[in-house]
Amino acid sequence: MATEVDPFLTQWHRAVTAKDLDALHGLLAEDVSLGPPPYWGRLEGRDLVHHLLGLIIETIDAFTYHREWQHGPELALEFTGHVGEVELQGIDLISLDDQSKVRRLDVLIRPAQAVDALREIVAPKMQSYFADRSKGAA
Amino acid sequence: MATEVDPFLTQWHRAVTAKDLDALHGLLAEDVSLGPPPYWGRLEGRDLVHHLLGLIIETIDAFTYHREWQHGPELALEFTGHVGEVELQGIDLISLDDQSKVRRLDVLIRPAQAVDALREIVAPKMQSYFADRSKGAA
Repeated sequence: MATEVDPFLTQWHRAVTAKDLDALHGLLAEDVSLGPPPYWGRLEGRDLVHHLLGLIIETIDAFTYHREWQHGPELALEFTGHVGEVELQGIDLISLDDQSKVRRLDVLIRPAQAVDALREIVAPKMQSYFADRSKGAA
Repeated sequence: MATEVDPFLTQWHRAVTAKDLDALHGLLAEDVSLGPPPYWGRLEGRDLVHHLLGLIIETIDAFTYHREWQHGPELALEFTGHVGEVELQGIDLISLDDQSKVRRLDVLIRPAQAVDALREIVAPKMQSYFADRSKGAA
């Protein structure tokens, strides 16, 4: 199947700005990987990436997309928002696979203070998620 | 004059990867503004922005451009490099004016550790620059 960028973008915008996490799940490839703002290491796999993305989207208020760039299946989507009082500007760098699902996503955010504010809220929730997963596996 | 993106890109790549700060100066509009990775506030004016950009370019080793996006005079340029041992991925979001000069530039970098490493080296040099400027003005 050929990658179809425009339908993907419409669905992605809708899922993110409506915080519709079920719809977001359907847009991720099973082997998706995420490069998060605070860490160099990548997160791998749809359930894990979906969970972290959901926490990020829930934590950033007034999430709004601005400039967008497309080059084949490679996308760059600029957004703004805020975490508490801290304003932020970010970009999603997205690679789509041939099913028009996200196979690679890097999220870059400035300023550093916003990354810190985001991490303070999201990191403990990710720790709970990992703890619950390991209990489920035991 | 119409914005000419391709000649700009050729010159920008050359100036940045060769660390040619004179050539870089010629690519900036007089009223250019820069949104730096660690701070929300913008730096305004060619000499100031040029000085900070020069310090950033000198501090990031193995500066390499990767994916690039164009949409009219709006550009997104992905790069990688490292500060000491800390690897980084960044993006230049560039708006060109009708003279094909940079009128707005935002630099986003991940991970947070790389922004910290960059700031540790660049911030004291910027302080010296401001101190010298205020001496010159006295």
